[in-house]
Amino acid sequence: MPFVPVIFLRIFAMMPRPVCTILALNTGSSSIKFSLYESGDTEELLFSGSLTRIGLPDGRFSVTDPEGRFIDCERVDVPDHAAACRYVFSWITQHGPGMPDAVGHRVVHGGPRHTTPEKVTSELLDSIAEIVPYAPEHLPQALNAIRYAASELPGVFQVACFDTAFHSTMPPLAKLCPIPEEYRNQGVQRYGFHGLSYQYILSQLQAEGDPFARKGRLILAHLGHGASMAAVLDGRSVETTMGFSPAGGLVMSTRTGDLDPGVVLFLLQQGHLDSDGLRDMVNKKSGLLGVSGLSDDMRDLLDAEAENEQARLAGELFCYSARKHIGALVAVLGGLDMIVFTGGIGLYSPDVRERICSGLEFLGVQVDHEKNLNHSGIISTDTSRVVVKVIETNEEVTIVRETRRVLENG
Amino acid sequence: MPFVPVIFLRIFAMMPRPVCTILALNTGSSSIKFSLYESGDTEELLFSGSLTRIGLPDGRFSVTDPEGRFIDCERVDVPDHAAACRYVFSWITQHGPGMPDAVGHRVVHGGPRHTTPEKVTSELLDSIAEIVPYAPEHLPQALNAIRYAASELPGVFQVACFDTAFHSTMPPLAKLCPIPEEYRNQGVQRYGFHGLSYQYILSQLQAEGDPFARKGRLILAHLGHGASMAAVLDGRSVETTMGFSPAGGLVMSTRTGDLDPGVVLFLLQQGHLDSDGLRDMVNKKSGLLGVSGLSDDMRDLLDAEAENEQARLAGELFCYSARKHIGALVAVLGGLDMIVFTGGIGLYSPDVRERICSGLEFLGVQVDHEKNLNHSGIISTDTSRVVVKVIETNEEVTIVRETRRVLENG
Repeated sequence: MPFVPVIFLRIFAMMPRPVCTILALNTGSSSIKFSLYESGDTEELLFSGSLTRIGLPDGRFSVTDPEGRFIDCERVDVPDHAAACRYVFSWITQHGPGMPDAVGHRVVHGGPRHTTPEKVTSELLDSIAEIVPYAPEHLPQALNAIRYAASELPGVFQVACFDTAFHSTMPPLAKLCPIPEEYRNQGVQRYGFHGLSYQYILSQLQAEGDPFARKGRLILAHLGHGASMAAVLDGRSVETTMGFSPAGGLVMSTRTGDLDPGVVLFLLQQGHLDSDGLRDMVNKKSGLLGVSGLSDDMRDLLDAEAENEQARLAGELFCYSARKHIGALVAVLGGLDMIVFTGGIGLYSPDVRERICSGLEFLGVQVDHEKNLNHSGIISTDTSRVVVKVIETNEEVTIVRETRRVLENG
Repeated sequence: MPFVPVIFLRIFAMMPRPVCTILALNTGSSSIKFSLYESGDTEELLFSGSLTRIGLPDGRFSVTDPEGRFIDCERVDVPDHAAACRYVFSWITQHGPGMPDAVGHRVVHGGPRHTTPEKVTSELLDSIAEIVPYAPEHLPQALNAIRYAASELPGVFQVACFDTAFHSTMPPLAKLCPIPEEYRNQGVQRYGFHGLSYQYILSQLQAEGDPFARKGRLILAHLGHGASMAAVLDGRSVETTMGFSPAGGLVMSTRTGDLDPGVVLFLLQQGHLDSDGLRDMVNKKSGLLGVSGLSDDMRDLLDAEAENEQARLAGELFCYSARKHIGALVAVLGGLDMIVFTGGIGLYSPDVRERICSGLEFLGVQVDHEKNLNHSGIISTDTSRVVVKVIETNEEVTIVRETRRVLENG
């Protein structure tokens, strides 16, 4: 009797999965990125594009094909997110292959209740609207894009993919913020971010047949304009550097990372800043930009560091902060088997990778100088006890996969 | 010819160092501690005492002899620090052996300019007054005590010993706060605290003939109501957990430690707290007290944890935070040779020490369960690659030694 279902399953597994088109939308505080995929047994990119500098001068709209060739590219100044959505959806409906089967959205914060991708309903939108104060610079834009998609692509199946969801496996201790209960009851806990990126990295490790994807002590380092790290034990997030908001953890391009609250109190109580000024400083004027006074872009700092001491200090501080956080995460993991670098800086700056890892020899980390010049693959020496890898992330593919999963499960 | 000076030096070294009496004063936000020492070749305690709960009900004044027997003990309710100083100095002048040769004060913050103990002058007092905003809950009291001592013990030699001074050897990177220059120029940098305690611990290691006192990678953990750790490389502080203020770093009894600034912004901008409320929350209502809702005292939490989940979580969070910070400091040191525990919790809670060290086996840390029940000496196993010690600290002895040094050097 068990013979029939086995045959059935084998035939079923050999059948190609039906193809559907899924639009992945990623709204940032001043940009919209979008990609259209055919999702079958694998994900095939049809085109991807972005509209940047929303509400700022010198905005740019561009779309490229899977080989990175421009399909469209123009300067567009759009005053706000609503106008940006209008522009993007108008292009997609005119130039795309017709109505997508589903739209998946990156939603930066899921709060305490949304720990898995969900079909968009009016209840979900209300629930996300309630937690806008957790991520006031990101959630309004995501809500706006979801609503716009519903009106421009009527009846289309939409899915919200939360960047915090990946870390919902963290134990209670890692989620706990050491403040009184009355404030924790407002939803203040450690959530963690970059989950769609980390999920992609883990799926890539699985696709490569890497045994550490399922069993092992990993640190995944997403180092871009925003930067965080996740401690992954046996395939599940157990700790991360960002907490309640994307301003915490590592020193970043323009964000402070975790801070002695005495600094905040001093600046507030001595009248150097009010709370709006503080928000601005913490999110937009600190980190690499604040220390260097020159640029928030690591490439600029590396270029300038030979002559500019502040630029050098900023770059070194970034690596120093990353090294300390690796140490803290390894203490949580009880040892280390692998580090994976991704994100703009993690992918394209061998210098930064080498500086971060230098001094971590006691953990068994040995970076191969030659291999490290590559932007993918293993960059540790053959004898390094800890494997160090570079993998390009793709949050959109995670969105597409999760959207497909929710679509199939109704 | 070199013969004569050598003989001279040997004779000189054999002569007993003249004895002088030094009063060490340690003013906290709501207490004054004092100790009178005879300082010769060693430091001999004559008596020590404290006046606690200044400005609060149920204040207590007590003095004990070197064996810990009460010389005096009474309930005293004093309204403020001025009254407390009056009370303390009146007792000392009436019951002490006469005018001390010098008075040494613990001064919690030295700002960027005071990185070594200094003779008190009116210029120094003005300079300390300028940095009161760095430590508004501690410096006014210290200034008050210095001024009171000058008026009650006219002409006495006074020395200010800064708790930040020990960390002045930290490299620029460890001192850097990742905020814009205009705010760093206000003196916002990472200073570090508990320096008088760390200096004592190092001197004890030297007295024990421990080679790690001069050469090695040490973590000194002062775990008390306030708690911090220092990373010491070859006898010098290279990193510490507290930064600009005593509210940073580790989760503490009532303080948050380092925080995602997004938490602060959320609470401020959603109107849950104003900046005074924030100061109160961060310094007095968070940490063990905030998480447990029960007590700021680790002993109470350990007693209650079997039945009280919040108490258990608070205790575990303290150890978890300590373990993560050890990981971060080891990443700075590039490995680890020794951990020393001190402070009220570090000294008297074997449970906490064992929990902190559990999970650090990958660093070579192995605590011996039996030895760990002692409150001093080596508590690691014979085969542990990292030596773990417990040493009782004595900030007052550091104050006496430094005061004597400044006194002798004019």
